Amino acid sequence: MSSEINRQWLFVKRPTGPVDESCFEKVESALPQLDDGQVLFKNLYFSFDASMRTWMNDGPNYLEPLKLGEPMRSVTLAEVVQSKNSEFPIGRKVMGMHAWEDYSVSNGVGFSQLLPDLPGIPPSYFLGALGPTGYTAYFGMMDIGQPKKGDSVLISGAAGAVGSIAGQIAKINGCRVVGLAGSDEKCQWIEQECGYDRAINYKTCMDLTETLKELFPDGIDIYFDNVGGQVLDAALANLAQYARIVSCGVLSGYDTGTNPSVPIKNIWMLLIREAKMQGFLISSYMHRAQEAATYLGTYINSGEIVFREHMEEGFDRAPQTLKLLYTGKNNGKLLLKL
Amino acid sequence: MSSEINRQWLFVKRPTGPVDESCFEKVESALPQLDDGQVLFKNLYFSFDASMRTWMNDGPNYLEPLKLGEPMRSVTLAEVVQSKNSEFPIGRKVMGMHAWEDYSVSNGVGFSQLLPDLPGIPPSYFLGALGPTGYTAYFGMMDIGQPKKGDSVLISGAAGAVGSIAGQIAKINGCRVVGLAGSDEKCQWIEQECGYDRAINYKTCMDLTETLKELFPDGIDIYFDNVGGQVLDAALANLAQYARIVSCGVLSGYDTGTNPSVPIKNIWMLLIREAKMQGFLISSYMHRAQEAATYLGTYINSGEIVFREHMEEGFDRAPQTLKLLYTGKNNGKLLLKL
Repeated sequence: MSSEINRQWLFVKRPTGPVDESCFEKVESALPQLDDGQVLFKNLYFSFDASMRTWMNDGPNYLEPLKLGEPMRSVTLAEVVQSKNSEFPIGRKVMGMHAWEDYSVSNGVGFSQLLPDLPGIPPSYFLGALGPTGYTAYFGMMDIGQPKKGDSVLISGAAGAVGSIAGQIAKINGCRVVGLAGSDEKCQWIEQECGYDRAINYKTCMDLTETLKELFPDGIDIYFDNVGGQVLDAALANLAQYARIVSCGVLSGYDTGTNPSVPIKNIWMLLIREAKMQGFLISSYMHRAQEAATYLGTYINSGEIVFREHMEEGFDRAPQTLKLLYTGKNNGKLLLKL
Repeated sequence: MSSEINRQWLFVKRPTGPVDESCFEKVESALPQLDDGQVLFKNLYFSFDASMRTWMNDGPNYLEPLKLGEPMRSVTLAEVVQSKNSEFPIGRKVMGMHAWEDYSVSNGVGFSQLLPDLPGIPPSYFLGALGPTGYTAYFGMMDIGQPKKGDSVLISGAAGAVGSIAGQIAKINGCRVVGLAGSDEKCQWIEQECGYDRAINYKTCMDLTETLKELFPDGIDIYFDNVGGQVLDAALANLAQYARIVSCGVLSGYDTGTNPSVPIKNIWMLLIREAKMQGFLISSYMHRAQEAATYLGTYINSGEIVFREHMEEGFDRAPQTLKLLYTGKNNGKLLLKL
C-alpha cells in the first residue's frame, strides 16, 4: 500500500471574503511507512461544519488558525487500513479531526475515537446525528437551553444539521418550537418531517422583529442561535423574562475576511429580561458523549428524531463542497464521500 | 399637617438626548387626608440610580415607561409621619419606590419596606451599601459572577456605588481585581481604599482592548459590566475560557433618546470562549435580601467593605442631581437629602 498515492488539499490562501477554490491547492505524495504505534487511516467521509470558515482567518478562535501551506482539515470518518498499534485493529472505523487527504497517519492519540458498528446505522451518521452535530444540538439545548414543558423556543438555521435536531429535542421536552430557515422547501421539511410547530422563511419575511413579536406574544424562552447577526438582534428584542440564548454558531458572519463581527444592538435586552446568553464548544462535553449518543440513538431509532444528509461525492469536490455550505443550498448535514 | 404644602417634580418632557431640567416641572398641592389603612410618608432621601434615565424613554424596559405629567420617581428613604395603619407606626423608616415629592401617601402594600434602626449606621446607608445598591453588587457578583479564588476580575464603573462594592466582594473571595473608572481621583480611591489590585482611568487609556490584554494575559474570568458599549466590547475581546459577564448596567448608553443601543461587535467571543453573559434585576432577588444584608453588614462593620456617599441637598436640586449622575462627576453613591 505504500506505493499508493496520497492526495491532499493544502490551504494556500487566506480568503478575504467568501471562501472559494483558489484558497486550496491539490498535491500528491507517496504514502509513508508506519513506525511502531502508528496507524494508517483511509478517510471515507469529510464533515462540513460552518465554523470551518473561521479557522481560515488569522484571529482569535477556539482552534489555532490554519497556517498557509498546511493541509485543510475537517472532522472526518476514517477506517483503519494498516496498523502497528493494537488498539486500532484493521477495519475499525474512527472519527476525528483529520486533514483533507486520502490517508492520514497517526499514533491514534487524542483525536481519533473508535466507533461501534451498529446494524442499520450508516457509518456517516457518526459525523451527523450520532456524532458532533447531534451532540452539539443535545448539549446546547439540554444544558444551556434547559427546556421546560410549555417553553416557547426559537431555532435559527432550523433546517441545518444542528438546528433540526435541537428543535426536535425541544419538541420532545414539551416545548412549542418555531424554526427559521432560508427556503420554502426547508420550512416545509421542518414543519412536516421534524414536527416544528411553525417555520418562517427569514428571506421572504419583511420584518423579522415584528414577525417574532406576533409569533411569540409572551416572548422567547429559549433561542438556539446558529446564525448571530440580525436574527440574533431580532430574537433579543423579543426575549421573555429569564430567557436562555444558546450561542451555538454565527453562520451569518463566518464567510467574511475577519472573524464574525456583525454588530449587535439589542444586547441590553439581556439585562432587562434577566436573560442569559452562553456559548459552548462540543469539545468541552466529550466526556459525556455516551449520554448524548444514548439519547439521540434512542429517538433516532424510534423515529422521533429525523435527520437528513446532503452527500457530495469525490475527493476533488472538497473545496466546492465547502463553498456550498455558506450558500444555504445544502439540504441537511453536508458530507463528502471520498 | 394637612395644611402643609406638598411639592412635587412632575415629568413633563421626554428627553431626546441627555436629561436636563426642562424635563421636569415643580408643582405644589395640599396634603391629602388619610383614609383607613393609609400612611403618610415624609421623604427624607432620594436615591439616584443610572437606570432612572431609561424610565424616561418610551421603549421596552423592566419598568413601565414614565408617563408625561406624572411625578418623577426614585428609590426613596422615608419616615412615617401619620398613620392609619398599625403596621406602620409613626417614626418608622421605610424604603421603596416613591415619587419625587415631599410627602407620599400609600397603603403600605408592595413597595415600602420597614427598615431597622441600627446604631452607628446612617439611615441613608439603606439606600446604598445596605440597600438595593449593595444587594445588586452582592447578587450580581456571587450568583452570576461566581468568584473563585485566583479568578481575574474586571469591574467597570468601579468607583460607582455598585461597582466599588462588587470589586470588594471579589477581593473577599480571593480574586485579583482590576477596576475601570473615569478619573485619577476615582482610580486612587479604589486602589487605596477599596483594595483593588489595579485601577485604570479609561478616559486617558489609549487602547482599552490592548490595555486589558496586558493586564489579563490569561484572560478575564469575571467581567462585572456597569457600562456596556465599547468597554464591554474590549472585555469580550479578552475573555478567558468559561468567563462570566455580569450584565448589571449600560451606563454608557443610558443618557440617550432611545434605550441603550451601542452596537457590540465581539459577541462571538462568548461562543469561542464558552462564556456566559447574564442580566439580572435586583427585584428578582428581594426574597434573599436578608442574606445580602447580613453579608454586607458584616463586612461593612469590619471595615473590609468601604463605601462612600455623594450627598446633595434640597428638594429643588433633584433635577440637577439626576443630571450629575451621567456626567461621572459624583463620587460615590449619589443621594439627595430633602
